[in-house]
Amino acid sequence: MKRNVFLDMQSLERAKKILFDNFKDLILPIETINSVESFARVLAEPVFATTSSPNFHAAAMDGVAVDAKSSFGANPDTPKNLVIGQDAFWVNTGHVMPENTNAVIMIENLNIIDDNNIEIENPVFPWYHVRKMGEDIVATELLFPRGHKVDAYSMGALLSGGIFKVKVHKRPNVLIIPTGSELKQWENIGIKTLEPGDVIESNSTVLGHLCKKFGADFTTHAMLKDDLDTIKNVVEKAAVNSQGNDAQYDMIMIIGGSSAGSMDFAKPVISELGEVFVHGVTMMPGKPVLFGKVYNTPVFGIPGYPVSAIVAFEQFAGPLLSEMQKFREEKRDIVQVKPSRKITSKLGQEEFIRVKIGSVDDKFIASQLPRGSGSITTLTEADGIIRIPSNSEGIIETEEIDAELLKPIDEIEKTIVITGSHDNTLDILTDQIRKDNRDFSISSSHVGSMGGLMAIKKGVCHMAGAHLLDPEDGTYNISYIKKYLAGEKVWLVNLVMRDQGLIIARDNPKKITGLESLTRKDITFINRQSGAGTRILLDYKLNQLNITSDEITGYENEEYTHMSVAVDVLSGRTDTGLGINAAAIALNLDFIPVITEEYDLVIPDRFFNTDKVQALLETIKTRKFKERVLALGGYSTEKTGRVLLGA
Amino acid sequence: MKRNVFLDMQSLERAKKILFDNFKDLILPIETINSVESFARVLAEPVFATTSSPNFHAAAMDGVAVDAKSSFGANPDTPKNLVIGQDAFWVNTGHVMPENTNAVIMIENLNIIDDNNIEIENPVFPWYHVRKMGEDIVATELLFPRGHKVDAYSMGALLSGGIFKVKVHKRPNVLIIPTGSELKQWENIGIKTLEPGDVIESNSTVLGHLCKKFGADFTTHAMLKDDLDTIKNVVEKAAVNSQGNDAQYDMIMIIGGSSAGSMDFAKPVISELGEVFVHGVTMMPGKPVLFGKVYNTPVFGIPGYPVSAIVAFEQFAGPLLSEMQKFREEKRDIVQVKPSRKITSKLGQEEFIRVKIGSVDDKFIASQLPRGSGSITTLTEADGIIRIPSNSEGIIETEEIDAELLKPIDEIEKTIVITGSHDNTLDILTDQIRKDNRDFSISSSHVGSMGGLMAIKKGVCHMAGAHLLDPEDGTYNISYIKKYLAGEKVWLVNLVMRDQGLIIARDNPKKITGLESLTRKDITFINRQSGAGTRILLDYKLNQLNITSDEITGYENEEYTHMSVAVDVLSGRTDTGLGINAAAIALNLDFIPVITEEYDLVIPDRFFNTDKVQALLETIKTRKFKERVLALGGYSTEKTGRVLLGA
Repeated sequence: MKRNVFLDMQSLERAKKILFDNFKDLILPIETINSVESFARVLAEPVFATTSSPNFHAAAMDGVAVDAKSSFGANPDTPKNLVIGQDAFWVNTGHVMPENTNAVIMIENLNIIDDNNIEIENPVFPWYHVRKMGEDIVATELLFPRGHKVDAYSMGALLSGGIFKVKVHKRPNVLIIPTGSELKQWENIGIKTLEPGDVIESNSTVLGHLCKKFGADFTTHAMLKDDLDTIKNVVEKAAVNSQGNDAQYDMIMIIGGSSAGSMDFAKPVISELGEVFVHGVTMMPGKPVLFGKVYNTPVFGIPGYPVSAIVAFEQFAGPLLSEMQKFREEKRDIVQVKPSRKITSKLGQEEFIRVKIGSVDDKFIASQLPRGSGSITTLTEADGIIRIPSNSEGIIETEEIDAELLKPIDEIEKTIVITGSHDNTLDILTDQIRKDNRDFSISSSHVGSMGGLMAIKKGVCHMAGAHLLDPEDGTYNISYIKKYLAGEKVWLVNLVMRDQGLIIARDNPKKITGLESLTRKDITFINRQSGAGTRILLDYKLNQLNITSDEITGYENEEYTHMSVAVDVLSGRTDTGLGINAAAIALNLDFIPVITEEYDLVIPDRFFNTDKVQALLETIKTRKFKERVLALGGYSTEKTGRVLLGA
Repeated sequence: MKRNVFLDMQSLERAKKILFDNFKDLILPIETINSVESFARVLAEPVFATTSSPNFHAAAMDGVAVDAKSSFGANPDTPKNLVIGQDAFWVNTGHVMPENTNAVIMIENLNIIDDNNIEIENPVFPWYHVRKMGEDIVATELLFPRGHKVDAYSMGALLSGGIFKVKVHKRPNVLIIPTGSELKQWENIGIKTLEPGDVIESNSTVLGHLCKKFGADFTTHAMLKDDLDTIKNVVEKAAVNSQGNDAQYDMIMIIGGSSAGSMDFAKPVISELGEVFVHGVTMMPGKPVLFGKVYNTPVFGIPGYPVSAIVAFEQFAGPLLSEMQKFREEKRDIVQVKPSRKITSKLGQEEFIRVKIGSVDDKFIASQLPRGSGSITTLTEADGIIRIPSNSEGIIETEEIDAELLKPIDEIEKTIVITGSHDNTLDILTDQIRKDNRDFSISSSHVGSMGGLMAIKKGVCHMAGAHLLDPEDGTYNISYIKKYLAGEKVWLVNLVMRDQGLIIARDNPKKITGLESLTRKDITFINRQSGAGTRILLDYKLNQLNITSDEITGYENEEYTHMSVAVDVLSGRTDTGLGINAAAIALNLDFIPVITEEYDLVIPDRFFNTDKVQALLETIKTRKFKERVLALGGYSTEKTGRVLLGA
């Protein structure tokens, strides 16, 4: 089995240097375009005004233009008479000042005697209410230096300064070639026909629109199978067409097959047609990136995992696109954040950790999202990215660290951070609050009920979702709050009542009857993590039934959400797990009810009366929210919104 | 003369409420589009995934898929043999896991015995190197709530979640009608044919592209003369066409004529065709905005001064466009700034003060730009906007206040703030540094040489430009630094030597011969402000010639820059003023040399060795910079870059 190898992994910094050194002379041609079509283009040359604005002395008010001297001596007791057409001339705002006038008296301040005479009661000084020639722009002055990106305001200054055409760098055109025999094009997929092993091709769309962000256009090639000669032919033809003045492409990106596996062809393609500069960078995600040139065209091998693809693009291909246009890349805003939990990192790798960021007690709290480079949702859910350098083993809770922001800080500040147990109605709530009140949004992390209480204790969330059963008296949450949040003033508000039970395959092929079936040797179970309310519930019920954990196959295997449990059942990995009915219904699985439980929100008193929390509480009381919850199945809402404990 | 009046001026807050209350039911229709074409569109409905991603258990590494149990017991001393096709199955990254396997052993960790047998030296646990079904996305989960704006990353999540079509709000289409008999369309202007009184129409381009920022498309109508019936016909036709399902326009903006003058027709147009809700808002710029409806279409009267137009748009029309799409408007980032000088404001008016912002000594320092609402450059040069509420008379120097940022904070932090005397070579330097080093940029404010020294003393700039002559010994700047910056360690570096003299009209019609001509009764003079080096130079020279200031007509009139002086001469407002040759050359005026002087940069020691200041000093030493300076005329560069005083 033939395998390529990462011959010589480079650090991110070193790899960037290699990239820019190799392409330092690759500057795009300059073209001349109309200023009115220059929006978002980058000026290739400085622009100096050719016209002054205004190009004349202009009246700045409606009234009469006068020579200021003729007004001297006027006062309310002895008004001065001015003759229209001789001492004073009617003007409207914007009119050219008549010859030998240098001030405007507002119409409101005139006594109009007759068609030919007016009286004024106060003098004016020279240039009063006059916009002088060149007040805005003086011909020959610098309007914008080279490298300026034209925005809407700039277009106004260009036109006013008499600049109707500007020189800009050509927009680069990028050829994107998705490769991979497993890929399916979305147009060819009916939902039902997606077979196991099929992957919907989405990278070309994502990278294409990232190209646009970097000022480039893109062309997507038809998807290619994993075949060396096919890919090679396409790349060679594209690279040949990119030479000379009427170059077709300024960059080529091969997506997929950039690693060192036997079916990874990006490296042999580039090395056989041209030269590979770097293969493998010590960063995560994005490690298997490679780049080189074919003829003089930069060619990238972009990893196929979506987050790796994006990181590889944003670290290398994007900045090179900026450089080709001599444009200063826009940096993301940065804020200092504190991690909600310790974040570990591998030595020798620069890690890009995606985080949710909440603004809690005037601190920015960052919660780590899963690290899988195959999960695009770790980027779409992220509010920011923390970069952990390769010489660090991670950051501890008390440490502050920079996070690059993916969302406006204003949006982060208006987000309600809910941590704790997972429930599907939180999705409904997230959407409903956006409908009711577009000012606020919800960000929820799933760490189990006990994790939620701990998050409140640590001050890293605005509220926690919990359903912690007290086996002594059958109450929910209250005894746990007293024990674990002693001294903390909190409110307890019911969100929903929900059915918990065994999630099982459709039509119950293993004929599971209830918790007592879990001891059967032919049944595998999937558990929830310690601290999850569902886990506590399970242990309580098993105890009632006198079943011990070692009688259950799979008790030690854990998932973090109801949906993950349901997916495990759906995929046949396991036979059953305890979870909410809503998860079973969502995936069209069967369900054996075990208990109806209370799912509440625990809210510290200091957040309770904030606008955002009150907006959320209002939303959960609406008929619309309750209707949407009931439509999920497995819920009831008779206690929804009720305050169970006041601070 | 018929005049309209502002019947009932509203506060900004109240006017906004009136706007939104009147159009609260104006929501745009929903359309279904392909996800791959949904970039920057706003989701009208929440999106739930229909496909899991991956939709199968997938190998996450190249190697062999096994049932983890079959690896148990392997160790380096007693490796375990696995039979290919029976215990172990070759897989590449992304492949479907074969039936009855649940872990992948990496190819690097295998001993390949022969085609049928491999050995392993370590066990693996279940689900090791496996991407489980639904790891990224579980079918039925919420991908995005309504109101989400689709970006590049989101497109990846939509496609991966099986969402190939999305429901979005229609993009609003705005009809922009520029009005004003003085307007000239840029296509019809050769530079030479711009007559006094002509104004280049630029507002429609600016507002059109601002519409795009708010998610709308725009159509620009041909320019209309100031004629009530003409404008009325166009608006009525457009409004009629906007009714019903195939509505053509969702908003109409009449630009110009929104005030209360006799030639301001926006108000009568709207009131005669429909209803005016607000005319006049207590804000500056933008006071003469008006809005109402014709049929059910919102119609705005937008003031014609460019900054007023932009403020009126951004406060009213833009937010209404967001609202129509049920989209949460993007807010600008905010930083706390300290004003470099007191900023006064008029009671009863909410003022939008445009400021330059510099990051000096870890503080953000805001310097006010001119307030003229006719000056688009006050916005293109601005880094931020300070809003002074209507109940405030302004802010003092020690006060901190919020500024909305117009530029990324990173760019502001990398800007070199130069305050002090004005010189045209600063424009060249601003451009040249962008060419040499795209990391840094220059922002310069013109407050005269003494103003520059005071700015250094107050710590509100990184360097000052100065050309302060010491009449005692003919030296420049050094004695002033000793006197006014005692105790401050500064460097003095020469920028250029330059010719100062009398700027006079082409061909010298008044036959001015030198400073001695200034005492002639038929000669008017324009002075520079107190503290300007040029003013000090003038007084020094007049003293030598025994001329007193009261012998000079116009001595008391002041301008702040050389170019303003030159413009005054060009426009015939005055006969002459003292200034640099470069200003005369730029405007094609004549020039009578008086002295060659030194123009230096004064740089506090604590900034001298920063990257940005060193980058600037490197640039001024380059041959290219000197060549560009010499090309301006009136300069010499033999001392350029020389350190005249070290800290």
